[in-house]
Amino acid sequence: MGDLSGYREDAVRFLNQAGASIGDVLEVQTDWGTVTGTLVPRYAYGVGDYIVLKLKSGYNVGLSLSGLKSAKVKEKGEKPSFTAPLPPKPAKGLPRVLILGTGGTIASRIDYKTGAVHPAVSSAELHSLVPELSEIARVEPEIMFDILSENITPKHWTKLAQRVKKAVDDGVDGVVITHGTDTLGYTAAALSFALAGVPIPVILVGAQRSSDRPSSDAPLNLLASTYVAGRAEFSGVYVAMHLGEDDDKVVFHRGNRVRKNHTSRRDAFVSVGVPFAAVWGRSGLEFVGEGLPKRGGPFKPRVRFDEGVALLKFYPSMAGSLVAAAKKGGAKALIVEGTGLGHVDKEVMQELRAFVKGGRLVFMTSQCIEGRVDLNVYATGRDLLEAGVIPLEDMLSETALVKAMWALGNSTSIDKAKELIISDITGETTTRTFPEKK
Amino acid sequence: MGDLSGYREDAVRFLNQAGASIGDVLEVQTDWGTVTGTLVPRYAYGVGDYIVLKLKSGYNVGLSLSGLKSAKVKEKGEKPSFTAPLPPKPAKGLPRVLILGTGGTIASRIDYKTGAVHPAVSSAELHSLVPELSEIARVEPEIMFDILSENITPKHWTKLAQRVKKAVDDGVDGVVITHGTDTLGYTAAALSFALAGVPIPVILVGAQRSSDRPSSDAPLNLLASTYVAGRAEFSGVYVAMHLGEDDDKVVFHRGNRVRKNHTSRRDAFVSVGVPFAAVWGRSGLEFVGEGLPKRGGPFKPRVRFDEGVALLKFYPSMAGSLVAAAKKGGAKALIVEGTGLGHVDKEVMQELRAFVKGGRLVFMTSQCIEGRVDLNVYATGRDLLEAGVIPLEDMLSETALVKAMWALGNSTSIDKAKELIISDITGETTTRTFPEKK
Repeated sequence: MGDLSGYREDAVRFLNQAGASIGDVLEVQTDWGTVTGTLVPRYAYGVGDYIVLKLKSGYNVGLSLSGLKSAKVKEKGEKPSFTAPLPPKPAKGLPRVLILGTGGTIASRIDYKTGAVHPAVSSAELHSLVPELSEIARVEPEIMFDILSENITPKHWTKLAQRVKKAVDDGVDGVVITHGTDTLGYTAAALSFALAGVPIPVILVGAQRSSDRPSSDAPLNLLASTYVAGRAEFSGVYVAMHLGEDDDKVVFHRGNRVRKNHTSRRDAFVSVGVPFAAVWGRSGLEFVGEGLPKRGGPFKPRVRFDEGVALLKFYPSMAGSLVAAAKKGGAKALIVEGTGLGHVDKEVMQELRAFVKGGRLVFMTSQCIEGRVDLNVYATGRDLLEAGVIPLEDMLSETALVKAMWALGNSTSIDKAKELIISDITGETTTRTFPEKK
Repeated sequence: MGDLSGYREDAVRFLNQAGASIGDVLEVQTDWGTVTGTLVPRYAYGVGDYIVLKLKSGYNVGLSLSGLKSAKVKEKGEKPSFTAPLPPKPAKGLPRVLILGTGGTIASRIDYKTGAVHPAVSSAELHSLVPELSEIARVEPEIMFDILSENITPKHWTKLAQRVKKAVDDGVDGVVITHGTDTLGYTAAALSFALAGVPIPVILVGAQRSSDRPSSDAPLNLLASTYVAGRAEFSGVYVAMHLGEDDDKVVFHRGNRVRKNHTSRRDAFVSVGVPFAAVWGRSGLEFVGEGLPKRGGPFKPRVRFDEGVALLKFYPSMAGSLVAAAKKGGAKALIVEGTGLGHVDKEVMQELRAFVKGGRLVFMTSQCIEGRVDLNVYATGRDLLEAGVIPLEDMLSETALVKAMWALGNSTSIDKAKELIISDITGETTTRTFPEKK
């Protein structure tokens, strides 16, 4: 049987009946007519019951199996070759950049002949995706996981942090982590705490458009990330994504002040409450923010996470029993996304009061996203303070969640964890160093 | 005993000891020195254990009871008068606007002598707060509730909808609802469904700065809301708040496409996925969007809500047991804020599958806020579809929550409720009528 990379189940059966392999030109009978095109491999995370043909026009068309009658091979194609030319041996003196793959849209490469997408793993493949890489750094690619980012857990955060620590010890100049965008912000926040004080840049990078589209943002994001990881004078954990819809600038967001705010745009990520950390254009860094930590310095990562933290968003007539359920589910700490300055209704307040008893922690953030919680303005806020709820200034709720997991994972007691959570570890709340956007 | 409006418990005891009344000049001994000033009434929703003095400089100072030693009355003041001059009898032919008070920062007036804040209830008081009101409409103020908006429930939504229906029957030209900003967006969405097809404008209006500050946004927001309620050619449910930080323009957001996105700014509210409905400047309406419904037409409100809906925001390592807890708490429908295009991890997916069994409903929205969910791009989305999860396009999760409560409250079966939820009732998802922002 031929190569049917990326196809699954019914699609494989359908294609095998026709004796088709990737690269063959197929003539397919559908409910609505005949389609002729070259069979291309499927994107690894794609939906299963489609086959994809590259038409003569260059466009790919996805055909749902349910509408297909039959297929025949019109022309045997060459098996597409993924052997890209080897990159030139990088010049001595270039910075060393470790590129860790975790999965997601970014970690893929396009075959320009078939439009197919495969994980980009080897140095040669990265080179064919972004030839300029070898001019700016000696890249060392390594696949750590290959999973959709909604399935990333705190255990993965720990492994990533440990791997970065090893890279630092090995003298790597910077690390790039390719990651699905869904939970990119959570992982970035997690690493910002686990790797607080890291002496090199650690850049998490994603893509919103898969590499099988001409509009893919993957190459530019990778290029900018590698540049900054290898050459920037600052250190710390950042998220790199497109600055706008144009394919010319990449922005670096602080790892714990960033949020995916759009489901599909290439500039989906935004910095919340702080200016960008840096902006990269095709000629290099065009803007570098104030107050970023310099490279170097001592570094003692704290890489553990405790999953016993829950996050609840408050809403009108929310059942207070959800708070009790979080406790029953093992939560030692609870992050509440309150309304406005950080409020909940009376029923939920009672439940938070009960949750706090027994030494558990409740922290208040706001579902407004922008701005600072303040429990001193209205009576509800004061009652929350009296109930033991701790306001978290202008910390994002997602950052608060991850920080609580980290603090609990690296503390010997709840009280010590609480102290960590309300301390500024690495710019996650606004201090003098990170001026607040008006 | 003297008038101590707005003070509570310990503050009342402390002031009674000194024989003080509002308006008296007090000399107060504190831990750190002596303060002299005029005792002003307290804002009704303020924190309890403070007393507030207006200093000679005009500034108010709040003194925490815990730091106070004693007080004595230096000078008996006049009791401040809240009798404002009566508004001129409105000219015949002005539109009739009903102003319904529910509480919150907006529903308050300032006494310029003492800086005190009281609920604005009477026609005379509204006139003293915004004298121009009587030039643009015959306003008919009515207090329905006086509660902080985090305590507003679906039962209040029903009462508001019924009251608006009565106003329509009575021939009122427009309704303004003053409301705390915390849950203003939820109430607006609720009324947009309950009052779908309403033949007059219904404007929900709030304020971010209480009227005891010179920077209060309450007067301008009230003025613009009354103008639009009485005079705009369009109908429907809208939220009116400042367009920017400057005190000169008020923007009207569609009631089910609006979100409080900042905890404290005067322009905290944003339209999501659609352009503004209208913008008001001091000389009238400066912009009116396309596709707004005209005044008039048949109107049959459906005013019931069923509280058996829960909202859960997904996050890494979320305990699947929260889904089961929502079911146990009586939820017939669940709104999930997934990551990215609408994803959750495998554990939560299993729980959603179980929730759906037995005829319950699960709807997917995105925590990204902007953009559209799409369960057809990645394998996770397809698995969710197979599990029975229903994607809600670009509907805000808050709107989805409220819409599900409304649909369940006005349907004879779960299936009919589901049909309502996935139908476009009044522009809550993007259709041709409401062009999507790029």
